[in-house]
Amino acid sequence: MKYNQRSLSMMTDLYQLTMMNNYYTLGRHEDKAVFDVFYRKNTKYLSYNVFAGLEQVIDYIKGLKFADDDIAYLSSLNLFDKGFLEYLKEFKFSGDIYSMEEGSIIFPQEPLMRISAPLAQAQLIETAILNIVNFQTLIASKTSHIISAAKGADILEFGLRRAQGCDAGFYGARASYIAGAAGTSNVLAGKHLGIPVKGTHSHSYVMSFECELDAFMNYAKAYPDTCLLLVDTYNTIESGVPNAIKVFDQLRKSGHEPVGIRIDSGDLAYISKKARQMLDDAGYEKAQICASGDLDEYVIEDLLIQGAKIDSFGVGTRLITGWDNPALGGVYKMCAMEQDGEMQPKMKFSDNIQKTTNPGVKKVYRIFDKITGKAEADLIALEDEIINESEPLTLYDPVETWKSKEISNFYLKELLVPVFKDGKAVYKSPSIEEMREKCKNNLEEFWDEYKRLTKPHKYKVDLSDKLYDLKKEFLQKNYK
Amino acid sequence: MKYNQRSLSMMTDLYQLTMMNNYYTLGRHEDKAVFDVFYRKNTKYLSYNVFAGLEQVIDYIKGLKFADDDIAYLSSLNLFDKGFLEYLKEFKFSGDIYSMEEGSIIFPQEPLMRISAPLAQAQLIETAILNIVNFQTLIASKTSHIISAAKGADILEFGLRRAQGCDAGFYGARASYIAGAAGTSNVLAGKHLGIPVKGTHSHSYVMSFECELDAFMNYAKAYPDTCLLLVDTYNTIESGVPNAIKVFDQLRKSGHEPVGIRIDSGDLAYISKKARQMLDDAGYEKAQICASGDLDEYVIEDLLIQGAKIDSFGVGTRLITGWDNPALGGVYKMCAMEQDGEMQPKMKFSDNIQKTTNPGVKKVYRIFDKITGKAEADLIALEDEIINESEPLTLYDPVETWKSKEISNFYLKELLVPVFKDGKAVYKSPSIEEMREKCKNNLEEFWDEYKRLTKPHKYKVDLSDKLYDLKKEFLQKNYK
Repeated sequence: MKYNQRSLSMMTDLYQLTMMNNYYTLGRHEDKAVFDVFYRKNTKYLSYNVFAGLEQVIDYIKGLKFADDDIAYLSSLNLFDKGFLEYLKEFKFSGDIYSMEEGSIIFPQEPLMRISAPLAQAQLIETAILNIVNFQTLIASKTSHIISAAKGADILEFGLRRAQGCDAGFYGARASYIAGAAGTSNVLAGKHLGIPVKGTHSHSYVMSFECELDAFMNYAKAYPDTCLLLVDTYNTIESGVPNAIKVFDQLRKSGHEPVGIRIDSGDLAYISKKARQMLDDAGYEKAQICASGDLDEYVIEDLLIQGAKIDSFGVGTRLITGWDNPALGGVYKMCAMEQDGEMQPKMKFSDNIQKTTNPGVKKVYRIFDKITGKAEADLIALEDEIINESEPLTLYDPVETWKSKEISNFYLKELLVPVFKDGKAVYKSPSIEEMREKCKNNLEEFWDEYKRLTKPHKYKVDLSDKLYDLKKEFLQKNYK
Repeated sequence: MKYNQRSLSMMTDLYQLTMMNNYYTLGRHEDKAVFDVFYRKNTKYLSYNVFAGLEQVIDYIKGLKFADDDIAYLSSLNLFDKGFLEYLKEFKFSGDIYSMEEGSIIFPQEPLMRISAPLAQAQLIETAILNIVNFQTLIASKTSHIISAAKGADILEFGLRRAQGCDAGFYGARASYIAGAAGTSNVLAGKHLGIPVKGTHSHSYVMSFECELDAFMNYAKAYPDTCLLLVDTYNTIESGVPNAIKVFDQLRKSGHEPVGIRIDSGDLAYISKKARQMLDDAGYEKAQICASGDLDEYVIEDLLIQGAKIDSFGVGTRLITGWDNPALGGVYKMCAMEQDGEMQPKMKFSDNIQKTTNPGVKKVYRIFDKITGKAEADLIALEDEIINESEPLTLYDPVETWKSKEISNFYLKELLVPVFKDGKAVYKSPSIEEMREKCKNNLEEFWDEYKRLTKPHKYKVDLSDKLYDLKKEFLQKNYK
């Protein structure tokens, strides 16, 4: 059973419906339009992003249907033409969608999804697509950076209580798992998505007993083979770890090996080293140390630099909210529109060059070096353009156009895949494990220099010559 | 029909279930425990918070029921006792809950909710309660500060596309309306919550026509009485506003008055003043100017200081995500526990004094000055304590205890109200309009000094003498 069986058809901004109504009454609702989903720039905090949310977009589009009470509500607003409300009753998506696959490494400006559909349809779905893709991509991206900081230690997603609602907890767990998290505390996500669920006990568990040792003994008795004890309710070093060791001794006597301890407060570098020593001295070299408590990629990187002895990190608030930049900022912009029966490229202008859009129907290539197998740059080209792989390619910085780079001995991979054709779903989402694998492999295609947490080298996303010329033409016409 | 008819029973952290299982097998699951929901401190960004989410907590608790497939999944984890799974099948909340009312102004450390229930039950519901209350309170609080910065201009919630999932958009719209937003773009929230829905058209609407004037003319024709035109697709001052005025002239000729214009980019102070002048000169003194685009309370305050002529602000990303601090950080801590048939106060320790909890079953008073009617401080007292309103009251700062303040001529208002009694819901949520009214009135009870955006005066939350003595006793015992 799917978790989300609610109808999301009304999950849209009012203006989408008022525009649709207007297109309908003008007889323009079936005119074909093309929109791109993309984000404008990397945040200060993330050097690349991990695309996620496509499966939910597909479910949303397949499930689009306006119920009688939806229509009744819209009618009550006195904004809509009767014919338009009839049209909504029969609404069905009939367009084409191309998309990046989930788990893909993505960069600013490049189309992540391309929607070609009758104008009114393409307009309706903007809000939900952005809502879904913006959030899941944000969390997958954040998680990927946290994982990279952890240098092989497991990352566990523990954020449900601080997530922005139930969906954020659920789909955040999903996105973080795609990006490589080892598990989640979220039971709902475990049940419906098959993500491994993790967790042990809380401070209140310890407090509910007369003393800490009592609590630990009882926990170990109940879970002899998954015994991980939270040691910081009273005093980690003086009481928590010594009590844990006493319990581990009992466990071992009865033929079980403890999993380890969790530390949730105090200086995690100092305490983890001290605790590691105590565990080792007591003969528990394999007992793991899990750390939690307001962690993010920067804290984790720094703790490890200081030699913290931590085997896994439970990360909550700062993962599940995208903390330092809690929205991806993805947009949905028209790039072409049928006019008098012909497709015309369209462009939005802005005094800020980063806010001008790239006109025309586009595709995205990733350029790989044939010798290293590493990604060298991405190239946004027009849909009907042919790039010759046997000839050297000169890439220009799209803004600082005097910067260029020649690439030869390369091969191309097209990144957008067909998802809907004439309204029919033609793409079967891989399993979440496959998405996770894809993300891992994709990430290995990039030099570490692009993945650094602070001041990473900027990965190039270039415009093809043909696209660049088209954009220049638009700009010169507008600013003449 | 309720929007959220999903079962949220499994929306919990795994460790709640492993702890419950353990309590069950020890025969302790029915021992009575008391937990407080509270947050530890104000963020750097918000000086007070607005409580929200109670209605959804009530729905969640009423709807608690583990379905067969839930039990089957849990059983598959090989963590749970068979008897415990049977117990879960029959699970029903049987405890008491006291809570702040939605729309209340709240401060750090004070109990926002108090849950007294059999230990296993109280444990299960921790995660969902925090998830719901943390998010809605965050958004209501953020909105309240944005509204206060807007000095009477309307705030419209436009964040759905950047919200962290569908629930975040929906409940974020709810919370922002309680806090005083004038409306939302979210149609789903409009339908199910009765919040006014707002919105006009996008840049793509303008781009879909041959020219801007054409687009405006058609929009005005469709919506002659709600005509608000987005004027910044090409060039606001050179093209957008002049075209809007041409269309307004047509509108007026046909007997309609325009609503106004929306500006979504550029320098909003400069452009709004210029546009105001142009509209006034053309005879549209009553046409409104709506501004949008990466706004928050600081930008709005600054724009108004510079004399921006803006009648309403559409606020999206930074409202709906709580942007600069996207989680409230509310916690759920045990404060008392039945031991050998008697209730014992409980306390969690920490080297960080702010992380130690307040022991015992508590209530919260707001102290009002009889002459001004203004709130002077909040007082956290033990449940069975009686505060004499006719005698002067000395308040001590709970951390910096050498600071004190004597208050006389005051009256008290108790803030926690009963919501569940023996598992039965005894509280009927007011309408969303009543909550909104409550929030507005509540806010007026506070001096402006507490509500300033930067460096606000700190509102006092004191511990009663009896509670303070109890806490001291615990601390001295632990650190002796």
